[in-house]
Amino acid sequence: MKLYEGWRSSASWRVRWALALKRIAYESVLIDIAAGEQHTRLAALNPMRAVPTLELDDGSLLTESVAIIEWLDETHPEPALLPVDARARARVRELVQIINAGIHPLQNTITQRAVSSDPEAQRAWCSRWIERGLTAYEAHVAGGAGRFSLGDQLTMADLYLVPQVRNADRHGADITACRRVRQIYDACLETPEARATDPTVVAKRAVGAT
Amino acid sequence: MKLYEGWRSSASWRVRWALALKRIAYESVLIDIAAGEQHTRLAALNPMRAVPTLELDDGSLLTESVAIIEWLDETHPEPALLPVDARARARVRELVQIINAGIHPLQNTITQRAVSSDPEAQRAWCSRWIERGLTAYEAHVAGGAGRFSLGDQLTMADLYLVPQVRNADRHGADITACRRVRQIYDACLETPEARATDPTVVAKRAVGAT
Repeated sequence: MKLYEGWRSSASWRVRWALALKRIAYESVLIDIAAGEQHTRLAALNPMRAVPTLELDDGSLLTESVAIIEWLDETHPEPALLPVDARARARVRELVQIINAGIHPLQNTITQRAVSSDPEAQRAWCSRWIERGLTAYEAHVAGGAGRFSLGDQLTMADLYLVPQVRNADRHGADITACRRVRQIYDACLETPEARATDPTVVAKRAVGAT
Repeated sequence: MKLYEGWRSSASWRVRWALALKRIAYESVLIDIAAGEQHTRLAALNPMRAVPTLELDDGSLLTESVAIIEWLDETHPEPALLPVDARARARVRELVQIINAGIHPLQNTITQRAVSSDPEAQRAWCSRWIERGLTAYEAHVAGGAGRFSLGDQLTMADLYLVPQVRNADRHGADITACRRVRQIYDACLETPEARATDPTVVAKRAVGAT
């Protein structure tokens, strides 16, 4: 497989992390989002011109991190990223969407730039949605136990939470009240697959490739 | 089950339509989004304060339309809203997310109001994202055959497309180039479950209840 990804793109991190957990080898193609390369290099591959875009072994293309990760989980079941129980699966997908639809599209680079060209206005805009969404996530997980969002099994929800918390820190969002969210973030970053796919690691590769 | 929904909410329509297809009886609780009732009546039920919010038979709450519809499909398999083949399932989920994450959060009432209090600025903002997203959707389905987004089987993707096209028309977005999208929209609205759950039908009920 070939993954078109951005080094700082949180949606790319989700998929990169899933691929690492599943032990799937792939070729990485880095797209420079800040420089707008998605509008040229991805125009013919993904009508939304976004990363991640995954080229499958048959040459077909799959986009949208949720579709990619659900597909990976169905075709490469170990380790499972969704629980077996239907109610628990629904819980994970609920948490995933709080981030995937409830936060991320609102703080995406393209949205920030549509709102304002002023960095401070962009920061305030992003923080607003990140704080709202992660506060909701915290309300969902605050009463839970275990290392991760749903007990001690790492799930798809964690793959969405960690990159979003990273974005929160980058934008200076105030999520100090989200204590359990922070604990889960820290626990995830103790796992080898999260560390190996961390944007800071990919950034070094990107710089090295330039 | 009890569904907290908004009569014009496109995310509510998706779930209402899925429930109709699955022949699941439920109690409807109408939330007046324009009047901000989600901030009072849903505050204790859904940390995101959004419709749809589904109260299950065991009293637990499930939010986010994707989580709700995937759960309905797993627990009430007939008629299936996702194909059997993993690649086709991924295709449906990709189309779902183009709308659920790629368009809807950007043209939501809360987002519109955060961008501007001027109705014309809100309209232009919404149209921009709707046109971008539905153009991408069109590129994905333009080469396809059959009545619906993925052949002749109605899928979850159609449940997302139809309410989004309705929103496009409401906001005056120019999607005249999205010919296949319009054909699918028309075909869907010939089905009894789409018609029975149409916001215009629910609106009459809402008025009747007032």
